[in-house]
Amino acid sequence: MKLSVVWVGRTKDRRIEALAQETVEKIGRYCRIAIVEVKDSSLAGKGASNRPVEEGARVLKTLRPGERVIALDEGGREMRSVEFAGFLGKAMESTPAGVRIILGGPFGLSEAVLKAAGHRISLSRMTFTHEMARLVALEQIYRAFTILRGEGYHHGSKTTGETV
Amino acid sequence: MKLSVVWVGRTKDRRIEALAQETVEKIGRYCRIAIVEVKDSSLAGKGASNRPVEEGARVLKTLRPGERVIALDEGGREMRSVEFAGFLGKAMESTPAGVRIILGGPFGLSEAVLKAAGHRISLSRMTFTHEMARLVALEQIYRAFTILRGEGYHHGSKTTGETV
Repeated sequence: MKLSVVWVGRTKDRRIEALAQETVEKIGRYCRIAIVEVKDSSLAGKGASNRPVEEGARVLKTLRPGERVIALDEGGREMRSVEFAGFLGKAMESTPAGVRIILGGPFGLSEAVLKAAGHRISLSRMTFTHEMARLVALEQIYRAFTILRGEGYHHGSKTTGETV
Repeated sequence: MKLSVVWVGRTKDRRIEALAQETVEKIGRYCRIAIVEVKDSSLAGKGASNRPVEEGARVLKTLRPGERVIALDEGGREMRSVEFAGFLGKAMESTPAGVRIILGGPFGLSEAVLKAAGHRISLSRMTFTHEMARLVALEQIYRAFTILRGEGYHHGSKTTGETV
């Protein structure tokens, strides 16, 4: 089982980077995981709103044939952690070429990336910083594997909401 | 304007603690903020599911008359960041006694706390670790103030989903 997580620009906060790295290592107990960091755009000021287009082109170059592509996007479908676990487990099992999860930079993902993605999933209706979104996404992926294995890491709701 | 954030147990991960502390300081530019940490329950094993009851009693003791109490709970109402900003701004302005935001421990909040809270808000349909939830909540509070002041920190959706 192969999982790639693509994001835009390096993680500047070294604490978030360390937490992310630890979570990647924990995920590595369950599957082959690769973090693919594409360069962020240098457009600034008024041009900054075009950053997703430039960054999106770089993201699209990382795609491999046959992969299942999931974009994490605020406008995507919301799932409970157990639903996401079921979804991810099924996607991983049914896609030998691997699953690719894509996160945008501070200005989000381009339309081209959203179009290329077979699935759009939202971590929250709230907007997170893109660095925090990495951490949240990785933790959900780790949580998903523990849920699939029934390992008791997940104390949250099975079907109804109970905890934050 | 007075804002209290109550959570259960100290933040064990020192990186999350540092990030939380920094965010608290940033929020402090906009209002008086107090972090109130109540002791977590020592119940373990099969008794662990009763932890929220013991912890909830401690949380309830921190409440002050006239406060607006908001519980962050997976089963609560979801809001976009701009909606949350509007909600929080209005709550702060209309409640001289202050606003109190409550987060649970790993096993969530007790029914008594949920009942005492006038509002239940969910950060996500997904379950976060309680330490990550602190960070997410604080960042949303900081983001809320920047949205209310129109400071351009928030690049996310105004009304429709655009970014993670």
